[in-house]
Amino acid sequence: MRVLITGSGGFVGSHLTQKLLDEGYEVIAGSTVLTEKKSKSNLKKVYLNVNDKDSIEEVLRKYNPEGIINLAAQSSVAKSWEIPEETLLVNVLGTLNIINSMCKNTPYAKFINIGSSEEYGLTAKNGEYLTEIMPCLPQNPYATSKLSAGQLALQSAKKHGLNILHVRAFNHFGPGQRLGFVVSDFASQIVNIEKGKSPSVINVGDLSAQRDFLYIKDLVNAYTLLLESKKLDLGIVNVCSGVPRKIEDILKYMITQSKREITVNLDSTKLRPSDVPFFVGSNGKIKETVEWESTVEFNDGLELTIEWWRQNLLYEKG
Amino acid sequence: MRVLITGSGGFVGSHLTQKLLDEGYEVIAGSTVLTEKKSKSNLKKVYLNVNDKDSIEEVLRKYNPEGIINLAAQSSVAKSWEIPEETLLVNVLGTLNIINSMCKNTPYAKFINIGSSEEYGLTAKNGEYLTEIMPCLPQNPYATSKLSAGQLALQSAKKHGLNILHVRAFNHFGPGQRLGFVVSDFASQIVNIEKGKSPSVINVGDLSAQRDFLYIKDLVNAYTLLLESKKLDLGIVNVCSGVPRKIEDILKYMITQSKREITVNLDSTKLRPSDVPFFVGSNGKIKETVEWESTVEFNDGLELTIEWWRQNLLYEKG
Repeated sequence: MRVLITGSGGFVGSHLTQKLLDEGYEVIAGSTVLTEKKSKSNLKKVYLNVNDKDSIEEVLRKYNPEGIINLAAQSSVAKSWEIPEETLLVNVLGTLNIINSMCKNTPYAKFINIGSSEEYGLTAKNGEYLTEIMPCLPQNPYATSKLSAGQLALQSAKKHGLNILHVRAFNHFGPGQRLGFVVSDFASQIVNIEKGKSPSVINVGDLSAQRDFLYIKDLVNAYTLLLESKKLDLGIVNVCSGVPRKIEDILKYMITQSKREITVNLDSTKLRPSDVPFFVGSNGKIKETVEWESTVEFNDGLELTIEWWRQNLLYEKG
Repeated sequence: MRVLITGSGGFVGSHLTQKLLDEGYEVIAGSTVLTEKKSKSNLKKVYLNVNDKDSIEEVLRKYNPEGIINLAAQSSVAKSWEIPEETLLVNVLGTLNIINSMCKNTPYAKFINIGSSEEYGLTAKNGEYLTEIMPCLPQNPYATSKLSAGQLALQSAKKHGLNILHVRAFNHFGPGQRLGFVVSDFASQIVNIEKGKSPSVINVGDLSAQRDFLYIKDLVNAYTLLLESKKLDLGIVNVCSGVPRKIEDILKYMITQSKREITVNLDSTKLRPSDVPFFVGSNGKIKETVEWESTVEFNDGLELTIEWWRQNLLYEKG
């Protein structure tokens, strides 16, 4: 199977590319940034910008992918407040551009659009697991953009008889994730302390909120199984662990893995309780649809992430 | 009070402009098309394109409106399938551009964003009146664009402390509405028959669906009262009659007003039952919020619309 991945250079994109190559797929790795031009036999690196229709047309016509996974996105909630327009352009109009080109060039392809648990927003109630049929109450431009893209994708599928599904991915983490996400932020601080670059104190706000975390390997495994599934009209599918985890428990475990004593300091200036204390997905639908289970022990995932940062900061030194 | 109306040249915009002038408001009538440059003392016609940020900045800086009503839109559902990108650009990014400029220039202004009952989509269940708290299931790019614009508008209000409300307007009709809407389509056909321009048969599909219709005068009256209301954080407000009307009853009454015998012909090729047989709003919230009541007898509205088409086709002849 020949699969196009948009945004293949990002955190999830690079893990997914490797996973699909390992499984014997032919991968067309689309990115706006091409670091090296040489491609392996089963991997073609191509220039693809979801806001440049010509680049999409060219790639779809040349490679005729049977599967497309759209990971191209402005994916920071914080940035979506600063650059809401670009967020909407990339996340909504970009998705539409791919679907329009797919209609013309590869109507037989399976299209997986990657959305976000952020779409649910204030729908999350204490103790209640989020299911795909719950109404969405998005609370920021990023969340709105992902919700709109999903709606447009599923409307287009119905209108043009396309095979499209929209994934709501919950929090995920692992080696290679940039700063700005809770596990990578903790891991980088711990490694900075280990290396004597920071004082051995981590300042935190309220950490009592419960969230749903998936290790990157389990996430890209879910995407691969969804790609292979022959079931049609799946609509929206949550990809999540279904396990509530307190942020403070994550931090505590990560600190036990540190080579240095670390003090956690409650920073009262950061002490704004979370809008949504419990934000956990139900993974009943994906489990029914494909034979997927989370296979990585959560703490192992945390350790692998810390280890990656240890290596990563070494590289930084030269 | 000085009020900016975007999309002031459209059907609702022109009625609203007149209403506000009649009430003594100072009106800044923004439009991408300026037919005549001369402005009356209480009416300034200005060039304003919601996708041209400079034009918004210029108008807000020069006129400092205390109220803004955003009627600029790509408002055809059918067209939204042909030009989804433009629909999103105008309806979503256009709204965002106004809000961004408002943040900088007129943060004290009241902003009324005009959305659509289409946002509810498949939420409509038989016999159940649509309320503002129901989850939306939009079924076309137009509906998605209006829902997103509303979400962004209310998120921005919360984030920046702005006074913003999002109106969901149900079907409305009256003199000056272009073709493509049920009452104007019926009225123009009846007048074409009266003038001997068409055979005296109206071909129709399934007309059993029930919808919520408001005469234009009642609609712009609602917008004016919402503009005047001092209540904050209204969020989403339906503007609708709350009265279910079968499309076939509307046609029957309109035919009784015709000067010619007209036969209604059920066209089996058009006989696709409506996706949503009952699509009627609850107007409890607007009635609670402002002292609004529908004042125009529905059949009077239909007669005024037919009469407008009689005049309009005369004008067309020269």
